[in-house]
Amino acid sequence: MLTWLNHIAIAVPDLSKAAAQYKSLGANVSDPKDLPEHGVTVVFVTIPNTKIELMHPLGQGSPIEAFLERNPSGGIHHLCFEVAEIGEAADKLRDIGVRVLGDGTPKLGAHDKPVLFAHPKDFQGALVEFEQI
Amino acid sequence: MLTWLNHIAIAVPDLSKAAAQYKSLGANVSDPKDLPEHGVTVVFVTIPNTKIELMHPLGQGSPIEAFLERNPSGGIHHLCFEVAEIGEAADKLRDIGVRVLGDGTPKLGAHDKPVLFAHPKDFQGALVEFEQI
Repeated sequence: MLTWLNHIAIAVPDLSKAAAQYKSLGANVSDPKDLPEHGVTVVFVTIPNTKIELMHPLGQGSPIEAFLERNPSGGIHHLCFEVAEIGEAADKLRDIGVRVLGDGTPKLGAHDKPVLFAHPKDFQGALVEFEQI
Repeated sequence: MLTWLNHIAIAVPDLSKAAAQYKSLGANVSDPKDLPEHGVTVVFVTIPNTKIELMHPLGQGSPIEAFLERNPSGGIHHLCFEVAEIGEAADKLRDIGVRVLGDGTPKLGAHDKPVLFAHPKDFQGALVEFEQI
């Protein structure tokens, strides 16, 4: 069911500094992109087998604001696995006793694909996103 | 310089449960392997483009003991990037003002390859390992 690690998201207090650090390490680093409907500005760091998404809060009530208050230096925020069919992922998680965040139904994610998040308390304390590709 | 994401390490309070969950999601999951010299028992979860390493403390004074005390449900512990030459990685990190943990020199890691860890406070709050392949 897990077909690919799509990205690792890292919440950062200073997006330009984080982007510059990854650029210095020879990674392919995108320009910042505002995603107002998700409350974040992101920079994509492409390495040969996956992507790092550097995220910074955008606007008021950003979903990563509280995370950065708890982790002022930043931190690894979530992982995202690709799945072939998001409904199947939702069913499978329910079957193994893992709650899906929110109302349990897939939503449109930051890449305009259907996504859902597993509840960290049910899944090794890690926030894990599943994205239908 | 970053040639590949080698793995994402997740510290887990219950290794069998974590392994069973990833197995239920269709991932290829190894048997547990004790690494006494690193104070952890690990299970490797292989997905097509990378690996997840599920880690549980082994013996006394395990390096992930304090992490699990702070995060009793578990959590994403570190990322590991492959690099061609570990000395070059150490120099580059120093050049961009990122401290290397410990005495700053590469050590033999859990895969018997030379590794070093960047200081999270200098690198977006994320614990990042660099491994020479």
